Amino acid sequence: MAIVVQKYGGTSVGTIEKIKNVARRVAKSKENGDDVVVVVSAMGKTTDILLGMASEISSNPDRRELDMLMSSGEQVSIALLSIALKELGYDSISLTGPQAGILTKGFHTKARITDIEIKNVEGYINDGKIVVVAGFQGVDEEGNITTLGRGGSDTTAVALAAKLGAVCEIYTDVDGIYTVDPRLFPTAKKLDYISYEEMVEMASLGSGVMETRSIEIAQRFNVPIYVALSSEEWPGTYIKEFDESMESKVITGLSVSDEDMMITINHVPYEVRNISSIFEKLASNDINIDMISQTAPSHGHINISFTAPKNDRFIIDKVMESIKNNIEGIEIDVQKDITKLSVVGIGMKSQSGVAAKMFKIFADNEIEFKQVTTSEIRISYTINTHDKEKAVVAVAKEFNL
Amino acid sequence: MAIVVQKYGGTSVGTIEKIKNVARRVAKSKENGDDVVVVVSAMGKTTDILLGMASEISSNPDRRELDMLMSSGEQVSIALLSIALKELGYDSISLTGPQAGILTKGFHTKARITDIEIKNVEGYINDGKIVVVAGFQGVDEEGNITTLGRGGSDTTAVALAAKLGAVCEIYTDVDGIYTVDPRLFPTAKKLDYISYEEMVEMASLGSGVMETRSIEIAQRFNVPIYVALSSEEWPGTYIKEFDESMESKVITGLSVSDEDMMITINHVPYEVRNISSIFEKLASNDINIDMISQTAPSHGHINISFTAPKNDRFIIDKVMESIKNNIEGIEIDVQKDITKLSVVGIGMKSQSGVAAKMFKIFADNEIEFKQVTTSEIRISYTINTHDKEKAVVAVAKEFNL
Repeated sequence: MAIVVQKYGGTSVGTIEKIKNVARRVAKSKENGDDVVVVVSAMGKTTDILLGMASEISSNPDRRELDMLMSSGEQVSIALLSIALKELGYDSISLTGPQAGILTKGFHTKARITDIEIKNVEGYINDGKIVVVAGFQGVDEEGNITTLGRGGSDTTAVALAAKLGAVCEIYTDVDGIYTVDPRLFPTAKKLDYISYEEMVEMASLGSGVMETRSIEIAQRFNVPIYVALSSEEWPGTYIKEFDESMESKVITGLSVSDEDMMITINHVPYEVRNISSIFEKLASNDINIDMISQTAPSHGHINISFTAPKNDRFIIDKVMESIKNNIEGIEIDVQKDITKLSVVGIGMKSQSGVAAKMFKIFADNEIEFKQVTTSEIRISYTINTHDKEKAVVAVAKEFNL
Repeated sequence: MAIVVQKYGGTSVGTIEKIKNVARRVAKSKENGDDVVVVVSAMGKTTDILLGMASEISSNPDRRELDMLMSSGEQVSIALLSIALKELGYDSISLTGPQAGILTKGFHTKARITDIEIKNVEGYINDGKIVVVAGFQGVDEEGNITTLGRGGSDTTAVALAAKLGAVCEIYTDVDGIYTVDPRLFPTAKKLDYISYEEMVEMASLGSGVMETRSIEIAQRFNVPIYVALSSEEWPGTYIKEFDESMESKVITGLSVSDEDMMITINHVPYEVRNISSIFEKLASNDINIDMISQTAPSHGHINISFTAPKNDRFIIDKVMESIKNNIEGIEIDVQKDITKLSVVGIGMKSQSGVAAKMFKIFADNEIEFKQVTTSEIRISYTINTHDKEKAVVAVAKEFNL
């Protein structure tokens, strides 16, 4: 008998009727002879409603108390799912994150799982129960309830699967991982398989299906993940270690993100101290900068460009103001209408020529790009947002995505 | 510096605006130099909404899972109140029942507090924090979340006050304890003081302000309780040990309850075995019977009457059916329109004549009564519900309530 960890997101448990459907789906896995651990998120818009209440009281609510507040949401959905399972005649038990032994560290509202004290969950599995665990939450060393931030329920599910030596099934409102976001390229193909490495890149580049962190944990502990629709029985996508049986394509997928803006600092006097002081200031303000490019020095000056999250724009404005005051003669240019387009493929490790092909596509289609960065299995470009559609279609067609 | 435990019920925290008001009231006590522990219930109708969701899934939802479900309600209100206190500039921390060390035993949905591991709460008090504790909930020996049943938040508050050597302030939507329910007798007087003994009787006889159990705990640990309005600064009622300073009235209050029905079994053959078998059967079905009366044997037969909660009517019907099948020739009569009227007063211990006065009131006003029972500080009568108003007014006037 294998152990399966199944995760159902907020929309999958958004109504009482949907919770009953999830119970039936879980029951089917149990009938197949598997031990099932179910991880659920809060129902639908619960988290938003709770946050709305907090913001009526304070414009900057305490983060520990936000965790206390938000974690009540999953408590409702786990209790209701367990009641639904019992109604179908299955023995089940719901556990909050702390009860399931999810130990965390770090900041409230974005804590990280450090370990899982698994004996409670294991004990109930051995009793033959279906164990329903609250996703997204845990407990820190002082006994405070914590939440794991965006995509936290995926992380809970993968971490539990890692600890239990189980497979992890992520049921959601998309039916798998696509080569390109189907909203941008409707004929995009669904992948049967994708490697952890590729999925980490795709996720961190804006493919919204799963968060990067959960894939990284899966990769570290070699947990096979299956992503599929919660409402239908269509086949989904397996995320697993790359092996020879997986079709070796040069490019597996294309990711697009509009979440960053590009800042260019022109006419910086070419001194190492200047350049490092700029990036130190950004780092000390916790700004997560991404693509960095720099022109060759010309007449003792350089231009530096980098991308950073649009969400951080207010703090970036402040930092830029202070940099301007410290380095004489520089000019700062901010472009918000930029898009990051990336192609990802484990085949790039062994086959070259992807960059050349990309440059040709951009030239043929008159798409201007501003920055390029590469990793072993990825090439990313910064382009103007108004070229996004044209670029996605051209690249997707060229690489048969 | 004294420690004060303040409890605010569901209506007192029913909206965001009301939560802000509670925060201001708590802050005022803190400003007065007291350390404050606040116990809150779930917001307004939250518990009903959650129960409604459960009943959409199952007609008989699992009680452990109901506790998991319902305890989410207080988690929301403690977090919001703590956010509101911080917004006012006070350091505060919210704790669930389990985090506050509320240890319980017994059935889910009506567990009992066995002890409180107080070190967590005490530690935060010593740090100067206002501690906001979820009422109504605790944790059992297996780590399951439990709830305490009706009036459970009062019990949490009184038990915490007992453990901390604190006074307990119960803020609610009535402004104190009245001699008679003002809805029945509008000129009823508000009591400045009432003894634990009297309050236990009043509470168990249907005076809805506080539950019996919390008063019993207060009495056992000698915790002074103050009951007052949460929304205004009017003086309320102190519940405390009887002492000479308290005005010694023969009758302190009058309680009325419509929650019971009266069952009469006529023509029971007068054998001890018959009578005990009837009450054994009722007890083994967990039916809480109250006033019992029995006629003297006549021609070898007796009639037995008792009262029991109307809520248990389905199970009582079943038990009566089975008794009828076991004892030949009996007839069962059920009266639902009955009211229990009780007068309570610690002065009855030393002064006699209350019963005589009551019988005279009933005779003068042509009020028929069906049963009488007495304790040291109480006399209760079963009357027809249609005589309730007349009886309340007559008794209240006679004893100047």
